[in-house]
Amino acid sequence: MAKPTPLSGFPELLPEHRFVEQQVIDTLRHTFELHGFAGIETRAVEPMDQLLRKGETSKEVYVLRRLQETDAAHDSGVGLHFDLTVPFARYVLENAGKLEFPFRRFQIQKAWRGERPQEGRYREFTQADIDIVGRDTLPFHHDVEIATVMIDALTRLDVLPAFRLQVNNRKLIQGFYTGLGAGDVDEVMRVIDKLDKLPVEAVRGLLVDEVGLSGDQADQCLALATIKTEDDSFVDRVRELGVSHELLDEGLAELAELMRGCAPLVTDQVSIVADLSIARGLDYYTGTVFETRLEGSESLGSICSGGRYDALASDGRTTYPGVGISLGVSRVLVPLINKGVLSASRSVPSAVLVAVVDEDSRNESNAIADALRRNGVPCEVAANAQKFGKQIRYAERRGIPFVWFTTTSEAGEVGHEVKDIRTGEQVMADPATWTPPAEDLRPQVNSTHSQPRHHKEQDQ
Amino acid sequence: MAKPTPLSGFPELLPEHRFVEQQVIDTLRHTFELHGFAGIETRAVEPMDQLLRKGETSKEVYVLRRLQETDAAHDSGVGLHFDLTVPFARYVLENAGKLEFPFRRFQIQKAWRGERPQEGRYREFTQADIDIVGRDTLPFHHDVEIATVMIDALTRLDVLPAFRLQVNNRKLIQGFYTGLGAGDVDEVMRVIDKLDKLPVEAVRGLLVDEVGLSGDQADQCLALATIKTEDDSFVDRVRELGVSHELLDEGLAELAELMRGCAPLVTDQVSIVADLSIARGLDYYTGTVFETRLEGSESLGSICSGGRYDALASDGRTTYPGVGISLGVSRVLVPLINKGVLSASRSVPSAVLVAVVDEDSRNESNAIADALRRNGVPCEVAANAQKFGKQIRYAERRGIPFVWFTTTSEAGEVGHEVKDIRTGEQVMADPATWTPPAEDLRPQVNSTHSQPRHHKEQDQ
Repeated sequence: MAKPTPLSGFPELLPEHRFVEQQVIDTLRHTFELHGFAGIETRAVEPMDQLLRKGETSKEVYVLRRLQETDAAHDSGVGLHFDLTVPFARYVLENAGKLEFPFRRFQIQKAWRGERPQEGRYREFTQADIDIVGRDTLPFHHDVEIATVMIDALTRLDVLPAFRLQVNNRKLIQGFYTGLGAGDVDEVMRVIDKLDKLPVEAVRGLLVDEVGLSGDQADQCLALATIKTEDDSFVDRVRELGVSHELLDEGLAELAELMRGCAPLVTDQVSIVADLSIARGLDYYTGTVFETRLEGSESLGSICSGGRYDALASDGRTTYPGVGISLGVSRVLVPLINKGVLSASRSVPSAVLVAVVDEDSRNESNAIADALRRNGVPCEVAANAQKFGKQIRYAERRGIPFVWFTTTSEAGEVGHEVKDIRTGEQVMADPATWTPPAEDLRPQVNSTHSQPRHHKEQDQ
Repeated sequence: MAKPTPLSGFPELLPEHRFVEQQVIDTLRHTFELHGFAGIETRAVEPMDQLLRKGETSKEVYVLRRLQETDAAHDSGVGLHFDLTVPFARYVLENAGKLEFPFRRFQIQKAWRGERPQEGRYREFTQADIDIVGRDTLPFHHDVEIATVMIDALTRLDVLPAFRLQVNNRKLIQGFYTGLGAGDVDEVMRVIDKLDKLPVEAVRGLLVDEVGLSGDQADQCLALATIKTEDDSFVDRVRELGVSHELLDEGLAELAELMRGCAPLVTDQVSIVADLSIARGLDYYTGTVFETRLEGSESLGSICSGGRYDALASDGRTTYPGVGISLGVSRVLVPLINKGVLSASRSVPSAVLVAVVDEDSRNESNAIADALRRNGVPCEVAANAQKFGKQIRYAERRGIPFVWFTTTSEAGEVGHEVKDIRTGEQVMADPATWTPPAEDLRPQVNSTHSQPRHHKEQDQ
């Protein structure tokens, strides 16, 4: 067959790049587990009526058909999931009797959307979701928990650029608009959402002409949207606008609690802002809303979003409220990998190449490799008994830092030496005990945007 | 919405069962990396012409169609992959210029087939593949390597029943039949494959009547198929049959080398048999063939299969020979999980539940949890400040072994105590330094078929 060409929107990674993705996924999983979240996977497909339940045709669902289906026009009735929230809500209902609530779960899986591919938007992509779902009720402190867990995870992804988490609360916005006497709250939110595309004056015009607000009301809405604080001081700023409503009070209290709860976690890697201009998602969620920007990649949009659903799932008798957040793993990583910002220090896991003297002694080289593996050292044996110079080049091309040689003295005694091919240093070593320096044991993720920092925790 | 029902053929796991699968996948990955195999993932879809290249319509491919496709009868031209070999061959060709050969890769991913679901056969299933692919040539020692790596991996999966790896070689069979003067070698293989369904006499009849062998030739073919040895003594047994052919010699030498190379790895967990009755796969592969049976689950068929392809991929100018083996992760695990043989010791990663005295002191409980996490101890904070008895029950229901309490002395001094709720033992502890016993740090996989053995290596 001729050389195949890539499929647009279905990014695939070379081994040294897949290693970066795997490291990121491992870090996410490790963090989520430290916080008591159980990992699940759901099947790739959902019944079409589930996928289209909320009229989500904009998600460009891929429908499945069995090739052998006798009626060629007949679909199988299932399609690929376009996110991990719809499958999770279904999983909760299906297994409610077997789960303990509140149920904390993480899910790191692929999803598919048939939309037009562009940077950071793919037809196949990996998401990492965490959610906490309760039965009947779910205390607000879980909103704080979800934010702190994701901040902890993003902080540990220290080879990535800095993240800025932006939070808002639907109760706050809805209470403010209602207290102000604005009739159609959803309509106001929809117009305010245009602030990042239109000049303020144009948005004000729409609020007056289309939504029917007075000039004063429009000014108040615009004033609310300018409030951005890195602590709970937004409360005073909102109070100064003089609007009062019970729902506004509730929203202010929740968002303030969230900001205070997250404050101890802020680092130079992850910041958090109460940003009252955030409107996107407010018509899906019922309280807290999260969005996240990646420093230097703001054009990617929000790479980590979520919020509170008062009814994540319901079977008519029981309602399951939930709060969650979803990190777009592919959306963050694939552009950085394609730009050459992120790569691994080698294309194979092997820390050592065991050289082969000749094919007759391959078993001795295999035995050395087995001894190294017993100490957890990834290694491989040279494919051919070429000249040692060629075997060193073989290691170099893969980025393997060490080459292991056996030597035979004139008295016929077998000795072992290991060479760091980066420095040329060659020392005697015992395969039963030798291990490489910790930083050479596994491939390292290299990042050109900044100096990767050392992990604070070494328990993985 | 009403309670959803499972989709036949798309198994999903509860958290305590997903943990078992994740542990198995982690062990596989760890082993493959120790042997220098790089992990890759390929996209879920391939162009239809690739999927049907070998006339594989029996694989019941799922074809994708975008819901919004204006022409409703128009498929997207892509389907879900039904194995990981077709995508890997395409990946090798597509990236040949960027890969180093021989290229060792592992790939643990889902695949899909629209066939009728039954025990061990699913429409969505996880496979774990390892392959070594060369450019132009690939020495035979890589066949031995593939077998030893998979034996190492299966040995480490010590909570599973024992495995029996069965190996054969197409050159041996083809050379034998040709040396015997049997005209249509493929036809003989097809008939010999019926030995596990038909009586020997019936197969003999088919060899004579349908394939046109003489009675003596048929007896020789049947005699060959009875040879099964756990070492390289099959060579003498074949020689005794008095057939000679160059290809037979080559096959005998290869299979003997394979058996000798694997001999040191045989344990009570994994055995290896040269089984000359194995015919399935011989028409796909060009040399070594692997099949694997799971003790006590022989009805599942081969759960780990593979072999040597002299042309895994080719772009017309360059040929890429390969040897590989594929473990059916779902095929092995899902039946054992459904039968209750395998489960985890708890449904959450948390080793500790930090109790909450009242909602006002939740932050203090959070601080204790953070201190534990800094030492790598997975934990969670109680969802509600209920009576301690109820909080202990909360931990019990999830299988969390420890509950952490803060106590306040009459002098107002805060103390910490941790209770093992299995024994009732409660001791003073410091959240900055306390860690649970190693076996309680993560959920353990429990297996009822036998006592899980201790891992020999603790470096994970």
